[in-house]
Amino acid sequence: MINEGLLRRQNILKQLNSLQADACLLSSTVNLYYLNNKIYKGYCYLPYRGEPVHFVRRPLDLKAEDIGFLTDEPGQQGPRLHPDQTHFHLIRKMEQIPEILKELGLAPAQKLMLEGDELSFAEWTRLQECFPDSRLINGSQALRKARSVKTPYEQSLIRKSAELHVASYRSIPQLFRPGMTDLELSIELEYVMRRNGNLGLFRTYGADMDIFMGSVLTGDNASASSPYDFALGGAGHPSNPIGANGSPILPGQSVMIDMAGNFTGYLDDITRCFSCGKLTEKAYKAHRVSLELQDRLQERLKEGEVCEDLYHYSLDFVASQGLADCFMGKRQQARFVGHGVGLVINELPVLAPKMKEVLEAGMVLALEPKFVIEGLGAVGIENTFIVGKKQGEKISLLEEEIIDLTSL
Amino acid sequence: MINEGLLRRQNILKQLNSLQADACLLSSTVNLYYLNNKIYKGYCYLPYRGEPVHFVRRPLDLKAEDIGFLTDEPGQQGPRLHPDQTHFHLIRKMEQIPEILKELGLAPAQKLMLEGDELSFAEWTRLQECFPDSRLINGSQALRKARSVKTPYEQSLIRKSAELHVASYRSIPQLFRPGMTDLELSIELEYVMRRNGNLGLFRTYGADMDIFMGSVLTGDNASASSPYDFALGGAGHPSNPIGANGSPILPGQSVMIDMAGNFTGYLDDITRCFSCGKLTEKAYKAHRVSLELQDRLQERLKEGEVCEDLYHYSLDFVASQGLADCFMGKRQQARFVGHGVGLVINELPVLAPKMKEVLEAGMVLALEPKFVIEGLGAVGIENTFIVGKKQGEKISLLEEEIIDLTSL
Repeated sequence: MINEGLLRRQNILKQLNSLQADACLLSSTVNLYYLNNKIYKGYCYLPYRGEPVHFVRRPLDLKAEDIGFLTDEPGQQGPRLHPDQTHFHLIRKMEQIPEILKELGLAPAQKLMLEGDELSFAEWTRLQECFPDSRLINGSQALRKARSVKTPYEQSLIRKSAELHVASYRSIPQLFRPGMTDLELSIELEYVMRRNGNLGLFRTYGADMDIFMGSVLTGDNASASSPYDFALGGAGHPSNPIGANGSPILPGQSVMIDMAGNFTGYLDDITRCFSCGKLTEKAYKAHRVSLELQDRLQERLKEGEVCEDLYHYSLDFVASQGLADCFMGKRQQARFVGHGVGLVINELPVLAPKMKEVLEAGMVLALEPKFVIEGLGAVGIENTFIVGKKQGEKISLLEEEIIDLTSL
Repeated sequence: MINEGLLRRQNILKQLNSLQADACLLSSTVNLYYLNNKIYKGYCYLPYRGEPVHFVRRPLDLKAEDIGFLTDEPGQQGPRLHPDQTHFHLIRKMEQIPEILKELGLAPAQKLMLEGDELSFAEWTRLQECFPDSRLINGSQALRKARSVKTPYEQSLIRKSAELHVASYRSIPQLFRPGMTDLELSIELEYVMRRNGNLGLFRTYGADMDIFMGSVLTGDNASASSPYDFALGGAGHPSNPIGANGSPILPGQSVMIDMAGNFTGYLDDITRCFSCGKLTEKAYKAHRVSLELQDRLQERLKEGEVCEDLYHYSLDFVASQGLADCFMGKRQQARFVGHGVGLVINELPVLAPKMKEVLEAGMVLALEPKFVIEGLGAVGIENTFIVGKKQGEKISLLEEEIIDLTSL
């Protein structure tokens, strides 16, 4: 019998231990949901030894027994873990936390880990005043690390997302009509995805990476640089400069479709490339190089590989194919070739320069080698993989060649 | 000839002046877009006297002349304001900013306003190290105030959103099919809204108010409390607990539809209520009280009114109608009756307790008096208004009675 809640708690405790912190205080949506299977507005205090304490501002009618995972396997009915009334407190403001911890007999943490990348300066400052004797440390990256190796249940949720994502993408050729714009095709696909259970929400880590459900790029718009840290750009709308911008899908252009697969709260990531008629030889070659690089990287998605090595390997490979100048963009090139997925689209690890992190079995990554051919659009591939002991397992299985939308 | 960029800059300078700050450094998507008509990853330094300086990390190919408003009226072609190369700098990291300011002959700000509610603790700390001699102050609320009175151009964008929002809502009765769930109806309406030009993105102010395109509530789900600070709740999905949750729309239930109207980058907000067959007398009465309260508040959406007064007036009015216990929720009651709209759904001002802010002509607010009737659903209304000299102007004109979806 797997205890999902304990598995996840242990992932966080391991990070607490490595930073020699006595406790952490979580308040971001993503980390609260990760640890507790419940989103509330408030704070979860997790000591290195002992049970988590929930400080809830909203919902006002939340109960201790609403929080946590079922003790049995997911989906099965059963009691939740530790519905302990003394560890559940409705509060009006964070300043009540220290007193309640004292009443519970919990000594003030000497070193307290907070979410320094997520908490605003204003909130952090207030928390420091609540814990004047604690040394506060920024644990945001540690918590991302805790989330990077997925439990079997998390993997099953990402698999489920990938399955529904694949089913949705299968309908793309039928959605296309000659004369359509990128935006029109995107809207048709969004509708299919929503009807297939996509939750719509596209969660990202870090401020200011707003995006709607994903991106559809064709022609010149694939070369438009974005302020955001996605693989490719697209002009989008001035108020949200990413992705489709209303460009017509014209003969000779590619159409790259990269939507987030949030069907379960856990995201997978898939990109497929289509064409409107025939593309140039360079485009087909670049696409084949993407597929070849994907296969080579899949073999190295195994325990012990170092993230930056896979990135540099990718750069060398595309350089050997004479395609370095348009890899991951043209006017602006993204400096990664793969990224973790999970509760957000950009989890750790990232296959990028200076990333010394070592791959572990159970990590889930999207590999997305892509090329931008100016005027024509983008080509390439993206699939979601689970890191294994010997190689990666591809969990998004769907035709990978460029499909000509006009030949159907 | 209106100079949009100068109008907006003056709104921010007014706030700088009231806080006696020498400069502000903006980096949030919303404030950069507000001031510069352009979103980039980087920092905009706006001194109290002088021109803004743009420090851009991405896009790498952004140019000075891409930033700012056209000097003529919106939509018209013309040169942009101050395409001054010396005030535009591509940077790799924030630590380069002080040196460049020095080269421009700008003395270090004694008091520097930052976005303390948006900046993470980690970023604020790094910025403090960049400006060791400056006193940093949190200007997030001041910037929200700067944005609260809309320019004529901003008003025109919200009007345009409202117009397309109304056109989309007109189709709701045709979208309904007996046996539908809240989610199915929501998906049909999202599709209509997207095809009518809705950008999809639902921007909120403050961390952790994730929502997809809006909320459709029916039956018991309207009583479900949410962790988020929206007017009403709804269980949603565990990973995003707000709004529709797959509840069937059953006879005797209301259906409340509250989607964000982001058709232009500027949001309006409209809620309409429908029924599946007949509702109870209490529901119809509560709906009439909502309409009556809306009309009374509209008369007071004028210069000089104090926000909290309108909230307390609303509470008194619903209490006089015997409906205080289900106003703005049942198990959990939201403590506001209206909120600013604009680049985000929850702009200032807010009609809520303790809000001493005085209304000014040109502010744009959504009024949303609503009631939750347990088991039946929610009733009430929401429209977007521009604050005037004598009363509010309603800009979302559409039938306000409860429409029976089964009678069509």
